Amino acid sequence: MSTVPTHLDPEDWDSFRAGAHRMLDDMIDFVAAIRSRPVWQKMPVEIRSELRGKLPEGPVPLEQVHRDFMERVLPFSVGNAHPGFMGWVHGGGTVQGMMAELAAAGLNANLGGRDHAPIELERQVLRWAAEAIGLPAESAGLLVTGTSIANLAALLVARTRHLGPEVRREGLEGRRLVAYASDAAHGCVAKAMDMAGIGSDNLHLVPSDENGRMDLSHLAERLRTDRARGAEPFMVVGTAGTVNCGAIDDLAGLAAFCRAERLWFHIDGAIGALAGISPALKPLFAGIEQADSIAFDFHKWLQIPYDCGGFLVRDAQLLHQTFATDNVYLRRETRGLAGGDLPWPCDLGPDLSRGFRALKVWYSLRVFGRERLAAVMENHCRLAQSLAARIAAEPRLEMMAPVALNIVCFRYRFENDADREMVELAADLQESGEAVVSTTRIKGQVVLRAAIFNHRAEERDLDRLISAVLRLGAVRG
Amino acid sequence: MSTVPTHLDPEDWDSFRAGAHRMLDDMIDFVAAIRSRPVWQKMPVEIRSELRGKLPEGPVPLEQVHRDFMERVLPFSVGNAHPGFMGWVHGGGTVQGMMAELAAAGLNANLGGRDHAPIELERQVLRWAAEAIGLPAESAGLLVTGTSIANLAALLVARTRHLGPEVRREGLEGRRLVAYASDAAHGCVAKAMDMAGIGSDNLHLVPSDENGRMDLSHLAERLRTDRARGAEPFMVVGTAGTVNCGAIDDLAGLAAFCRAERLWFHIDGAIGALAGISPALKPLFAGIEQADSIAFDFHKWLQIPYDCGGFLVRDAQLLHQTFATDNVYLRRETRGLAGGDLPWPCDLGPDLSRGFRALKVWYSLRVFGRERLAAVMENHCRLAQSLAARIAAEPRLEMMAPVALNIVCFRYRFENDADREMVELAADLQESGEAVVSTTRIKGQVVLRAAIFNHRAEERDLDRLISAVLRLGAVRG
Repeated sequence: MSTVPTHLDPEDWDSFRAGAHRMLDDMIDFVAAIRSRPVWQKMPVEIRSELRGKLPEGPVPLEQVHRDFMERVLPFSVGNAHPGFMGWVHGGGTVQGMMAELAAAGLNANLGGRDHAPIELERQVLRWAAEAIGLPAESAGLLVTGTSIANLAALLVARTRHLGPEVRREGLEGRRLVAYASDAAHGCVAKAMDMAGIGSDNLHLVPSDENGRMDLSHLAERLRTDRARGAEPFMVVGTAGTVNCGAIDDLAGLAAFCRAERLWFHIDGAIGALAGISPALKPLFAGIEQADSIAFDFHKWLQIPYDCGGFLVRDAQLLHQTFATDNVYLRRETRGLAGGDLPWPCDLGPDLSRGFRALKVWYSLRVFGRERLAAVMENHCRLAQSLAARIAAEPRLEMMAPVALNIVCFRYRFENDADREMVELAADLQESGEAVVSTTRIKGQVVLRAAIFNHRAEERDLDRLISAVLRLGAVRG
Repeated sequence: MSTVPTHLDPEDWDSFRAGAHRMLDDMIDFVAAIRSRPVWQKMPVEIRSELRGKLPEGPVPLEQVHRDFMERVLPFSVGNAHPGFMGWVHGGGTVQGMMAELAAAGLNANLGGRDHAPIELERQVLRWAAEAIGLPAESAGLLVTGTSIANLAALLVARTRHLGPEVRREGLEGRRLVAYASDAAHGCVAKAMDMAGIGSDNLHLVPSDENGRMDLSHLAERLRTDRARGAEPFMVVGTAGTVNCGAIDDLAGLAAFCRAERLWFHIDGAIGALAGISPALKPLFAGIEQADSIAFDFHKWLQIPYDCGGFLVRDAQLLHQTFATDNVYLRRETRGLAGGDLPWPCDLGPDLSRGFRALKVWYSLRVFGRERLAAVMENHCRLAQSLAARIAAEPRLEMMAPVALNIVCFRYRFENDADREMVELAADLQESGEAVVSTTRIKGQVVLRAAIFNHRAEERDLDRLISAVLRLGAVRG
């Protein structure tokens, strides 16, 4: 007979417990000493090739698996926990959020439905998000992986509003739906149009002005043209913090426009929506509270560990009509575990099995409080202004876009082949381990882009970035 | 000036560390003593109403937030960590997986793209999944929240194959796509058709036989009819473990049919696909290795903490063509952090920000090893057969479906109003805290459904279930 256990609990709980405490210490040590590490370093080829083995047949001690993680994975991660990380848009995470993830994983709740406390917590953090944004408490929504899925969910609700709930059964049937966003909108909006079967070409990109905001007169003109040719405009997507430079569309203007034209007003607020918790930043987003739906990320500026986004829809019933299903194996009852408040989360979005993302948000918002989270955001905007001022003062550097929030686009003044050199300079910088910025294109030129989203970022991180850019740029000419 | 910190690190690391160790002990204690708890208990109304407060303004000590969690949330969770939980299809989770989630949250990697070790780990666990299923190592895929999204992703790849990559830009444009699944398929397949804009009515449900398997002659007939009326069949979805009773379609038969008819062969393997790690169970899934795409869940039978599903597509290039995008702010380079192996995960699925789900899979598969995970699954199938035998031997109970894997559908023989009484009996049982089963409908009748997915389940949990059902059933008549 086999002696392999038929359960997965530790054979020796005391020994497991001791090992688990060492693992916890390792992770706390990692975060506490994050400044002493390079921001990023490339994974050596030999370690990479060690990760190509077959499915393990027998057990490996937890301590050894953990050691492999600490030695072969952790040092070669993306680096966004480090205050010198300013690439793309990555939150830094927190050890408090880490502990909440531990608790969530230990409890292992499935938040697809049923009557239990974790779902109440998710409803609570969504009401907090609605409060921060200014949407009514009766708005409905969900936590999801991130804004890509959140934008898709909102788009499907807008589709239901335009075509009626029968679109779910009948499909699009050749209807020529058209939506609008600015040409500075994130690519995931077009991808949502693609996945929904409407087609990304039917997201009409309206030019943005020199500040990166959608040009409303172009939008009006485009709408007229589309209607004249028989297309069916159904949605406008405003952006609350563009990916390139953090620009915020005229949300109040868009809201008024959508009301007048009877279009669904969705906001991609991946970067900025939750900045509404800061009284200093909130005025920048005036009009956001008029959205029909809004998508946002907790794992970016709010520093919740990955992944964690969300969306809210003002018309809770329409959201329900978009996602609710009726299956015999998921009967809702008036009592027992299949009872509880309706709707179940699985009726408000695409997933049926859902992790307890809400716990890390609940822990973080309570442990830090609104005021401190707002202070982090406001500090990032101050740091971005400071960085912009220092770039403007350096003869070899040049600012490439206005700083709306916490993103700074700039370039090194290369004499020749500037685009190529800029790409190489970004890689030089990353490989130096001193700072990480990414690149993008502004007015056709490759630029360096520093997005200050790590709560540990300080002036000295800007010093280090600037001196590294100047030093490495000078080497290239 | 405000004294609110502008970062989120603990003010006092030693005190944080001490609290974190107590939190860890609490969670280990919870799991180690899970049997001493009721499987489920309803959250009291007064606690529920305490969860309705406003967004907290100032900080709450981590210890207090954690105490609130331990006292007001954890006791009223869904109960699936308990061996007496046999409702719906919920994995039990493990403390080893919990520790991996801690590590993942501390590292806080974003696996959307870029050159870092966490992405290599995800590629590794996907190769392991391919190995377990029997797909080629060159298959491509992703970890996602669960099979609902995995089925959607696979459906979109099948759509690309049928309509060409230009469908992404142009949309469905009135094409009359049709797909097939059995009437025992999970509702999320129809929901994927809905979200993709094809319409759930265009998922044609083929009758299943008395064993819950798709009737292939009906499928052939339906295909002929659909083609004759000008529809465009593009995909057949086989099920590897139906939600009601764990039935497995004739996957080899479906594979041959799809090859002959040039249809995409997708498998919804939420329940059973990964049972391929067991040599004893693998033969039940013969043909699974011929799928064009397959969706599966790690958080079900493999006991990985929620949420964690995945999908694999045999034609990696087609998957890439379905999801890849080209954005200036996401340039891929030949070196630096934007270098590394292509494609980036964001080019293989819907999400751009992606958590480090792979770590809990990597930890679990290594710590437990294939053999032990297989032993858990095999034990569940034995327990299900044992439960079925005991039900068959009880005069007041009746088996309602054959047991294909680890799901047992049965009923109490009520004299009157059997459907209503069965629903009440399930709720009685849940409220007793002794065991949790859910309900479904088989041949028009409401039945109790025990799905044995918790690795801690033993014969004594079946004893407790049977005696509670008999006792509570007798009270109702």
